[in-house]
Amino acid sequence: MDVAPTTATTDRRLLRGERTRQAILTHASRLASAEGLEAVSLQRLAGDLGISKSGLFAHFGSKEELQLATIETASALFAEQVMEPAAAAPNGLERLRELAELFLRHVENGVYPGGCFFASVAAELDTHPGLVRDRALQLSDEWLQGLEAAIRDAQAEGAIDPAEDAQQLAFELDAYLLLANAQFVASPESGATDRARRALARRLEAAIS
Amino acid sequence: MDVAPTTATTDRRLLRGERTRQAILTHASRLASAEGLEAVSLQRLAGDLGISKSGLFAHFGSKEELQLATIETASALFAEQVMEPAAAAPNGLERLRELAELFLRHVENGVYPGGCFFASVAAELDTHPGLVRDRALQLSDEWLQGLEAAIRDAQAEGAIDPAEDAQQLAFELDAYLLLANAQFVASPESGATDRARRALARRLEAAIS
Repeated sequence: MDVAPTTATTDRRLLRGERTRQAILTHASRLASAEGLEAVSLQRLAGDLGISKSGLFAHFGSKEELQLATIETASALFAEQVMEPAAAAPNGLERLRELAELFLRHVENGVYPGGCFFASVAAELDTHPGLVRDRALQLSDEWLQGLEAAIRDAQAEGAIDPAEDAQQLAFELDAYLLLANAQFVASPESGATDRARRALARRLEAAIS
Repeated sequence: MDVAPTTATTDRRLLRGERTRQAILTHASRLASAEGLEAVSLQRLAGDLGISKSGLFAHFGSKEELQLATIETASALFAEQVMEPAAAAPNGLERLRELAELFLRHVENGVYPGGCFFASVAAELDTHPGLVRDRALQLSDEWLQGLEAAIRDAQAEGAIDPAEDAQQLAFELDAYLLLANAQFVASPESGATDRARRALARRLEAAIS
C-alpha cells in the first residue's frame, strides 16, 4: 500500500532539488533588490515561501551563506542577460555599446523590482563591512572593468581615440547608466533610460577617433 | 528643601529643548544614511541615545513623523552647505559650478557615513510607497531642478549654448556627481570625486558657447 509522504519528508525532497534551490534564490534576489540584502534571512524566506526554517538552514547554513548565494544568483542572471550576449560582439566598440544597451534593457524589463541588483545592494552595504559587502563590491568592480576593457580594445582597434583615458570614459558612461537605473526605479515614465542613451551616444561620438 | 528632579521629569525637560531635538535628528540622519531610514525608529533612537521611548514618542508621535523630521534635518543641512552658498554666485554658470563643487565637498567631508543622504534614502525607498518616499523623491527632484535652473540661467546669459537641452545636460552632470558619491563611500581612495570633477569640466567646456 502506498503511503503519502509526511510533510517533513516532502520538505526535504523539495529542498534537495536544484530547481527548488534556484526558486528560493530567485525570490531572495528579488527581495534583496526591493528591501535590501538585510531582509534576506532564513526566517523571512521560510515565511515567504512556506518552507520550514530548518529545511532552509540545511541548505544554506547561515544568513551570510544565503546572502552570498543570493549575490551569485543575481550575478549569473546578469551574466546571462548582459555580459554574455555583449561578449559575442565583433569588436570593442560594439561590445561597449552592447554592454550599455543590454544594461538599460535589463533595467527597463524590470527583472528586479529595485532595478539593478548590484546598485541596490552596493548602496545598502557600503557601510557594512564583511564578506557579503566585499563580494558585492567585487562584482560592481568587474562590471566597470568590463566597460574599461571594451574601451581599451576599441582603442587598440583604432575605433576610439587613444588620447581618451579609458578609466575616465568608463566612469562617465557608467554614471549615465546608474542614474538611469535610479531614476527609472523611482519613476519608470521619467524617460531616464532614453536620456542615458542620448548621453552615451553623444559621449561616444566625441570619443570615436 | 530642594528636591532633585525625577528621571522622568529630566527626560521631559531635556526633550523639550530644541537643542535636544536637533541632536536626536542629527543622530537619526546619520543613522539613516548608514543603515537606511528603516533603521530610524523610536525604539532604536531611544536605545542609541539613552532616552526613554515614551519621551521620544511625545516629540515625534510615530515612526513616520520621526522619519519625515529626519529628512527635513538632512535637507536643512544640505541647504546650508550646498544650496545657499551656491545661490550667492554672480551668474548661472558660476552657480552651476558651485552646486557641483559644493556637492562633491559635502561628500568628501564625510558629513554622512553613507554619503549623500538623499542618494542613500532614495535607493532604499524607491520601492516603498508612502509619504516618506514622496518627500525624499521630491527633494531629489528639487536638486535636479536646481541644476537645470542654473543651466537655463546660463543659457539666458549667453554663457551656455542655447542648443543644449537643459534637462539632458542636468542629467549628465548629476550622473557624474552621484556615481562619485557612490564610489567615494565604497572606497574613499578611489579618486572618484576628482574623476567627477574632470567629467564636469569636460562636459561644461563642450556646453559653453
